Amino acid sequence: MAESNKRVVLAYSGGLDTSCILSWLKENGYDVIVYVANIGQEEDFDALEDKALKIGAKKVIIEDLRRIFVTSYVWPAIACGLRYEGRYLLGTSIARPCISEGLIRTAKAEKASLVAHGATGKGNDQVRFDLSCYSLCPEIEILALWRKREFYTRFSGRTDLLEYAHKNGIPVSATPKEPWSTDANLLHISYESGILENPAIPAPIELCKMTTNLENCPNEPEEIEIAFTKGYPSSVQNLDNCYVIDNPLEIIEYLNEIGGKHGIGRIDIVENRYIGLKSRGIYEAPGSKILYEAHQDLEIYVLDREVLRIKSYLAEKMSDYVYNGFWFSPECDFVRESIERSQKYVTGMVRLKLCKGSG
Amino acid sequence: MAESNKRVVLAYSGGLDTSCILSWLKENGYDVIVYVANIGQEEDFDALEDKALKIGAKKVIIEDLRRIFVTSYVWPAIACGLRYEGRYLLGTSIARPCISEGLIRTAKAEKASLVAHGATGKGNDQVRFDLSCYSLCPEIEILALWRKREFYTRFSGRTDLLEYAHKNGIPVSATPKEPWSTDANLLHISYESGILENPAIPAPIELCKMTTNLENCPNEPEEIEIAFTKGYPSSVQNLDNCYVIDNPLEIIEYLNEIGGKHGIGRIDIVENRYIGLKSRGIYEAPGSKILYEAHQDLEIYVLDREVLRIKSYLAEKMSDYVYNGFWFSPECDFVRESIERSQKYVTGMVRLKLCKGSG
Amino acid sequence: MAESNKRVVLAYSGGLDTSCILSWLKENGYDVIVYVANIGQEEDFDALEDKALKIGAKKVIIEDLRRIFVTSYVWPAIACGLRYEGRYLLGTSIARPCISEGLIRTAKAEKASLVAHGATGKGNDQVRFDLSCYSLCPEIEILALWRKREFYTRFSGRTDLLEYAHKNGIPVSATPKEPWSTDANLLHISYESGILENPAIPAPIELCKMTTNLENCPNEPEEIEIAFTKGYPSSVQNLDNCYVIDNPLEIIEYLNEIGGKHGIGRIDIVENRYIGLKSRGIYEAPGSKILYEAHQDLEIYVLDREVLRIKSYLAEKMSDYVYNGFWFSPECDFVRESIERSQKYVTGMVRLKLCKGSG
Amino acid sequence: MAESNKRVVLAYSGGLDTSCILSWLKENGYDVIVYVANIGQEEDFDALEDKALKIGAKKVIIEDLRRIFVTSYVWPAIACGLRYEGRYLLGTSIARPCISEGLIRTAKAEKASLVAHGATGKGNDQVRFDLSCYSLCPEIEILALWRKREFYTRFSGRTDLLEYAHKNGIPVSATPKEPWSTDANLLHISYESGILENPAIPAPIELCKMTTNLENCPNEPEEIEIAFTKGYPSSVQNLDNCYVIDNPLEIIEYLNEIGGKHGIGRIDIVENRYIGLKSRGIYEAPGSKILYEAHQDLEIYVLDREVLRIKSYLAEKMSDYVYNGFWFSPECDFVRESIERSQKYVTGMVRLKLCKGSG
Repeated sequence: MAESNKRVVLAYSGGLDTSCILSWLKENGYDVIVYVANIGQEEDFDALEDKALKIGAKKVIIEDLRRIFVTSYVWPAIACGLRYEGRYLLGTSIARPCISEGLIRTAKAEKASLVAHGATGKGNDQVRFDLSCYSLCPEIEILALWRKREFYTRFSGRTDLLEYAHKNGIPVSATPKEPWSTDANLLHISYESGILENPAIPAPIELCKMTTNLENCPNEPEEIEIAFTKGYPSSVQNLDNCYVIDNPLEIIEYLNEIGGKHGIGRIDIVENRYIGLKSRGIYEAPGSKILYEAHQDLEIYVLDREVLRIKSYLAEKMSDYVYNGFWFSPECDFVRESIERSQKYVTGMVRLKLCKGSG
Repeated sequence: MAESNKRVVLAYSGGLDTSCILSWLKENGYDVIVYVANIGQEEDFDALEDKALKIGAKKVIIEDLRRIFVTSYVWPAIACGLRYEGRYLLGTSIARPCISEGLIRTAKAEKASLVAHGATGKGNDQVRFDLSCYSLCPEIEILALWRKREFYTRFSGRTDLLEYAHKNGIPVSATPKEPWSTDANLLHISYESGILENPAIPAPIELCKMTTNLENCPNEPEEIEIAFTKGYPSSVQNLDNCYVIDNPLEIIEYLNEIGGKHGIGRIDIVENRYIGLKSRGIYEAPGSKILYEAHQDLEIYVLDREVLRIKSYLAEKMSDYVYNGFWFSPECDFVRESIERSQKYVTGMVRLKLCKGSG
Repeated sequence: MAESNKRVVLAYSGGLDTSCILSWLKENGYDVIVYVANIGQEEDFDALEDKALKIGAKKVIIEDLRRIFVTSYVWPAIACGLRYEGRYLLGTSIARPCISEGLIRTAKAEKASLVAHGATGKGNDQVRFDLSCYSLCPEIEILALWRKREFYTRFSGRTDLLEYAHKNGIPVSATPKEPWSTDANLLHISYESGILENPAIPAPIELCKMTTNLENCPNEPEEIEIAFTKGYPSSVQNLDNCYVIDNPLEIIEYLNEIGGKHGIGRIDIVENRYIGLKSRGIYEAPGSKILYEAHQDLEIYVLDREVLRIKSYLAEKMSDYVYNGFWFSPECDFVRESIERSQKYVTGMVRLKLCKGSG
Repeated sequence: MAESNKRVVLAYSGGLDTSCILSWLKENGYDVIVYVANIGQEEDFDALEDKALKIGAKKVIIEDLRRIFVTSYVWPAIACGLRYEGRYLLGTSIARPCISEGLIRTAKAEKASLVAHGATGKGNDQVRFDLSCYSLCPEIEILALWRKREFYTRFSGRTDLLEYAHKNGIPVSATPKEPWSTDANLLHISYESGILENPAIPAPIELCKMTTNLENCPNEPEEIEIAFTKGYPSSVQNLDNCYVIDNPLEIIEYLNEIGGKHGIGRIDIVENRYIGLKSRGIYEAPGSKILYEAHQDLEIYVLDREVLRIKSYLAEKMSDYVYNGFWFSPECDFVRESIERSQKYVTGMVRLKLCKGSG
């Protein structure tokens, strides 16, 4: 492999997997540029940078994608009414193309011909990263480490990774890993795998972080009014204190906060993954739940019945495309532009009373 | 008109409209057989009989359709996953064909060539009665009084009806009419029209009868387990006290009770009526909400993804047919039989924790 | 009725029905402005004008809508791939909104508050005229004579019309009426009703006018090349003689001629009418058949498979809307704009060998 | 590998590819049972047996699947109205599961744990064989030789195969291979690949074998009447000579003959393959074209419009499933049973006049 081909941009989370990948890539002669996308997850980004440099990153790039995530991914998802299998609001699915866009932009800027990620084959994320990156840059080479023989035969499980981390001075979190995996961003926290895989086991009560348990929610409802312009959220007003927000990022943050306080947006479902598996997932998505419902209330009031039927059909198609990783695809573009055409008149205000899980 | 043609079976509710209709029909030379379907609404059926006879009914037939309603209408609706525009569980829509079946059966037994009803033109019920009756008995003649010139020019509004009632000794409820209209049966209570028509006006707090307001719901959740056999509910167990029910009528009654206690199944929506109007409706449907969700949880676990997609498409079509009054139609039969074919393996148990509006 | 309300624009064909209507309207005190749309039918328009004036028209307006028909109705229908129930190319269905647009434009220019037409209730055209006119001008009043009691009780059949024509000096064609009805324009000739209603009776051999019977078609094929730009036909070249046409009206006329010569575009089908009837129709549509197929060939080569699936779904919906008279409707606009979005890359050339009915 | 695992049933066509595969398998220690399915292709089956035995087959099994192919695959395809992308009648697609069924039945009878086939990765057939065999027998092992590294690195093209054939005494047809590939059975002959890949090149005139060129078709039409029972063809009558056939295999053979004589059922299209490629194919399918159209004519006459809409939607889905190899799948079973439910009343007779490509 030519020297130039050994320059790789790694999508880095700071966790055990991507830390070992970083170290292993360096060990195998790659120049690793670490890329961290801030899409609203709770994280100490300075600590992350230090850690990556210590492990051997040539350079660490931390990008705040929160605004672009909201305006280019979350708002379209709301306007299009995306919901997978009638329930899941696609919080992770729409984050992957956003991160991929950052990865590819960075690879181009850094003249790297490779990008790497640590997504496993079991879920949908490997597919989402691969399809997004190839769509944005067909000549990119993708190192999906968990699909690479040299890597997955070297690390057959968590024990191997821990041992390798220990040997290579990779700091490992002292707290033992929770018996499930998590993905968090501005829009939601998801919980899956491990003990959660059996749907007969109820979600552990301590699991949820964004939403109050219903028994602890305030008895007093709060009323808010959400304004939409052509299907896009444009402002939120708290009708009790007249507080108004009209900045996209703050809108979603505020709705997460107030929705979470009232226990809104928690779901516990089984979903059909792209490769055919059934998977149990628990999601907390207070802000996007509120926006989804408010948008639906407005839309049904504004759209002609037949337009609504067609739009719903297209929204289901688009939800499948997005879930399966086809955000950047001719079919997704086509369907998205068609749906957005239907939003021409979806402008107006919706009032909601938030109380004990109900919006 | 021949004498034999003056024999009419009237779908009777005991309210002002159908009481005036009864009196007016008699006045116009009809022999009126009053038909009252018990589909689970709160009602003093003996008082109803007395009232009808007093007004001039030749005969009063009160039929308990509750069991047939549950097994032939509600269970199929659950197995087919019917939900109109993603939200309304069709509690009134599936009652109309059930009542029509009773009406037509009675007309045949009583050798009447006419049936009459008091549904107004504004809603969907006129269409539902007419289509159902004609499908079941193409040679029946239907007196939709509110479409009959002699009738609607005689009674231009509530005042005319009250005056007529007064003059003809028709007892009128002392309590003033609520400023909305209501339809109730085993499955739900619906509230619409009047002051509710403006969606900007929140639902009056005193309105709901089947479901506890969220702030008054118990803090303690209750757990239940629902069993389905080929998509049909077959039993419910309360996991806290091990109480088991396996009788269809009792299942829905029990779920209404326990679901209502925990504030489940209240919705406040705008829907698209058959004739194109937008209509605001508030519904309480605790039992059917629980069953809908439990069935969905089981189904997604059992059905292959592609089967689920097709089934969902068919369910949306069937929901439209049923909402629009086409329960007895070739397309509804076709779609229903197709969907039920998909339920071959939808057999299993679902656990739910009921708490503060969430099932 | 106020004097101003007696000014009516009549869609006039020159046939027995609309001639009697014209006379009857005048007799009943209306000022009748006769409107004749030239959409490519074979007609002596001067003779038509004379006839209308003689019967009593206040004014006769003959508009050449051929160009607007091609560019605003036919080309979109081709680009959208419209075909009703997989077979009928909608030649009459798309002409009705075009004529309605002319009618309404004329009514506005002539300050008439009424338009009149002679479409019967049996077919779809009454619905198409009414919906189109009301959409374009909600305040217009439509005189659908065959729905007007005074008119249809006066004329119970063809004999009444003939007698009335005779009495009122309305010239009637000497040749006896063919035992079917016909509609012709640039795009096609349709034959239906009368003896054709029974699908067991084969189409009379002398019926067809635009297309050569297969046994008489030339043995020598001709090759043409059709260019499309974003789904719209932009030119046709005859590859044998290099003759090129790039004017929309001439394109369709040329394709009718050459297609007709080679026996292309004749179909004999049963279709489902809006009101539920089954109807047998025979159609000759050489030019639109060639364009439909050429467009399909190009499209499948250009569009991504999933885009094609969605586009096909939308095209079927739009075909139903157009057939049922909803050309001017929110759903048709929505679907049309969506489909046209899919045509962004449908630019290219298609070669066809025309021979004995096959294009 | 255990001895028992070296017993393989090979789907054998007698061509260069599968002959080399047979020889190579033997060379590599396999006991090869050769399986030849007679699904109506032109073939000297005795010669095929000799050839296979000479190359080294342990045993040769030739099965006449023609009747089972017609009744279990072709008739359902006709009743379901299957047509891929609106044009291709799936002649090869429905043959693959039929052959797979024979292969698996033979593997079980012969106690072989392996089946082998020579389908290449470029087309859909590899997928169709694999999915069908795995569905019918999940524990089967499939040797898709063109996916096996040892094989495809050994034979990089036709030259390698010819050389190997020569060296191993495998008889090779003296006539040079046509510059395209072909698949033939009872239903159709398909032509694709090679020089046909470029859609700008017209189909060579000498290519077609089942259908007369239009210029050579008889001028005299022939009339036939086809009877259907619940959507299945039940008899054909030639109305000119009153010849009647009611045996399924003979029906399709007769329609191929008479349809071919009149030049019916030739198409030249581009289609979207499962893996996303565009592929040009030329097909001759006289009998299935006639049956498809006759069935459609009857169905539209019998089915309620809405039933037809739903049925068409399902038929398009099923066509995709079948084309993509999912004949044996839960979704295909579901959709097929649903569609067949719609055929309850599709019983009746259809008359067709066959003439110069038109049926």
